[in-house]
Amino acid sequence: MGLEIDVDGVLADLRDLHERFGGPDGARRVAWTPEWQAARDWLLAKLEDLPVAVERDPAGNIWATLPGAGETEGFVIVGSHIDAVPAGGWLDGALGLLAALGVVRALAAADAPPPVEVRMVDWADEEGARFGRSLLGSSAAAGTLDADDVRDLLDSEGTRLQDALAACGVDLDAASGATASLQGALASVELHIEQGPVLLDSGRLASAVSGTVGLERYLVTFKGQAGHAGSTPMRLRRDALAAAASAALAIREVGIRHDGMTTVGAMNADPGVITAVAGSCEMMLDMRVLDADVLAAMLTDCLSACEEAAAAFDCTVSWRRVFGATPAPFHPELVAIARQAVADAGGGDGDPIPSGPLHDSTEVARLIPAVMLFAQSDPPLSHVAIEDSPEDALRIAIEAYARTVEATLARVADGPLS
Amino acid sequence: MGLEIDVDGVLADLRDLHERFGGPDGARRVAWTPEWQAARDWLLAKLEDLPVAVERDPAGNIWATLPGAGETEGFVIVGSHIDAVPAGGWLDGALGLLAALGVVRALAAADAPPPVEVRMVDWADEEGARFGRSLLGSSAAAGTLDADDVRDLLDSEGTRLQDALAACGVDLDAASGATASLQGALASVELHIEQGPVLLDSGRLASAVSGTVGLERYLVTFKGQAGHAGSTPMRLRRDALAAAASAALAIREVGIRHDGMTTVGAMNADPGVITAVAGSCEMMLDMRVLDADVLAAMLTDCLSACEEAAAAFDCTVSWRRVFGATPAPFHPELVAIARQAVADAGGGDGDPIPSGPLHDSTEVARLIPAVMLFAQSDPPLSHVAIEDSPEDALRIAIEAYARTVEATLARVADGPLS
Repeated sequence: MGLEIDVDGVLADLRDLHERFGGPDGARRVAWTPEWQAARDWLLAKLEDLPVAVERDPAGNIWATLPGAGETEGFVIVGSHIDAVPAGGWLDGALGLLAALGVVRALAAADAPPPVEVRMVDWADEEGARFGRSLLGSSAAAGTLDADDVRDLLDSEGTRLQDALAACGVDLDAASGATASLQGALASVELHIEQGPVLLDSGRLASAVSGTVGLERYLVTFKGQAGHAGSTPMRLRRDALAAAASAALAIREVGIRHDGMTTVGAMNADPGVITAVAGSCEMMLDMRVLDADVLAAMLTDCLSACEEAAAAFDCTVSWRRVFGATPAPFHPELVAIARQAVADAGGGDGDPIPSGPLHDSTEVARLIPAVMLFAQSDPPLSHVAIEDSPEDALRIAIEAYARTVEATLARVADGPLS
Repeated sequence: MGLEIDVDGVLADLRDLHERFGGPDGARRVAWTPEWQAARDWLLAKLEDLPVAVERDPAGNIWATLPGAGETEGFVIVGSHIDAVPAGGWLDGALGLLAALGVVRALAAADAPPPVEVRMVDWADEEGARFGRSLLGSSAAAGTLDADDVRDLLDSEGTRLQDALAACGVDLDAASGATASLQGALASVELHIEQGPVLLDSGRLASAVSGTVGLERYLVTFKGQAGHAGSTPMRLRRDALAAAASAALAIREVGIRHDGMTTVGAMNADPGVITAVAGSCEMMLDMRVLDADVLAAMLTDCLSACEEAAAAFDCTVSWRRVFGATPAPFHPELVAIARQAVADAGGGDGDPIPSGPLHDSTEVARLIPAVMLFAQSDPPLSHVAIEDSPEDALRIAIEAYARTVEATLARVADGPLS
């Protein structure tokens, strides 16, 4: 490959950011806070040395534009986010952002300009850590943010989201103007840590990502008959907790059967005391998979399992959908490019894996051909100070990322991705 | 039979008590309150017309002694309790107490004194509704009450148990003197409503009671690994809630297999949110059965089921015993007498059933030959204002109770129960 990314430089930037805006107690870069603004100023200072035009869009996303050779209209997006959850790790967001910075540096240092314009982005407020609304900047750019839905969200001290944005110079009512940021975009490439155990478990250091899984969330309520634990014989019970337990085990099998993920994260019995058979039990159900048809089938199977479990324990069941998101598969041609880049960088030729967590690329992929790459997480955790990745995983992932951007630039220079 | 109990009179007393100290919103007779004292004064007034000696023991239990023929030392105890849970029903305690009053009336009206002295008791604070300590008066009499364990219990308004008793003229530190109340007791016979669904389900109106089940209560904690619901593949999960669900279903089978009762009343997952695989899950486990050996076997089987479930889901498990009570079987000869009395009163010849809830007779039975009779509950509930029993069930149960007392008196006049 032609592009020579300075992997050591990216790792040095990561450590510098962590020393300044993190440390042993974890990251201090919650969006819409002075610490976040200081971290962004640190980034802007890094950009000053590069031949890029920097601007902030109406949603607060920072863009740095490196001109291309001029023969192809449009641009390719690289980047991620500098914001972090409180006491979060040193890699979530930062890895992708500073790898993109490394790519821009390498492109700027090359003999010729890139075949297509490159725009590096620092998305504003990916985490939603202060107000609970994730992907704020990228959803504004994708046109899926409704200002009225988020205007009055409060942080833990009672500050309104709208006011916190205004204090950072962002007018929430103008944020929809960020949709212009994606106009003309030909592709988007983002690197991130996996934040899960799949690559660690299979001994892989990096991978192409096939897309972001879709999800369905339901609250399922089983109703039976409460009874005294000491005066209600087993054969006369209508035990709502037993029905929920039976459903939870069947739901687990649904996830396994469809190669998706099904989670019962809580079961709250009522009256919920040691001396009573539960008269009702509310179960929290989360279902995720990359394919929309499979997601629909999983949902059907899970709800059928609930009905069967209710019937088996002489209970009734009802449910309420509390959240859903359609799957966001990445562009097949870009996924293939990323897979090849991982192999070429020494990461092996493993199957692309889906992302469970949402990312800014989830929003972008609804409009623009997009792809992500993951570096192995070890421990397989995120949003905690001990979040980490092996250095060889970071090196291979950064190298693969640079190769993916380079190949994507070459590909879109030949014509748009269909 | 010779003894002619005035069943209509007992029912009239029950309705009178309910009109004065209950009503549509339920009972108003919580122990150690002015309403309870007023209800006891109502009872004392009823006793004034009878040839009985009334006294209160050091634990606050009221005793009314009807002399016997004088040829046999000792006495037979009849009675129950007039106290009630807040907004409780009209029969819990009151049925047994006023049926005993009816028996004393009938014995006093007979041509000859009973062969053995009869002592009617109104046990103090069976329910423990105000301070959470049930069976206060009967446990004092049985010698199982430790004053220091209960002295500082607080009611919802912050009053100490010791002070509430003192306000009713009971010195907690002298309450252990109530053990004298059981000295010389030859037998105890108590009538109560079932408070459960067994008799209703089998179409029986009354039954002899075989004893009070023993119980074991455990908090069982499964520990796995918390994980993101979207980034933890099924095969890599260590789902503590799934382990608990599996254990709960196996525990239910243990209860069925041993003809006992096993209840998982609650399962509290941590973190207990819709987006996370549970890293730990605490399960509340209650086990009850009348036979001590079977209870021990059930406990072993339930804990084994927990271990197997933990292993199946790659979790660990630990537990903590939070409460236990040994079974209190009633005296076999008295149970046989009560069974025959139920049959003779028109209640059919069904097997004696165990009591799940504790009663004052549970305490008494640890020292004295004792038995209980149950009247059918319909609805099969208690501790609620809608608590009720069919009138024909009450009539048969009261009649059977009188026959049981009469037969018991004849039996102990022949010599002590072994």
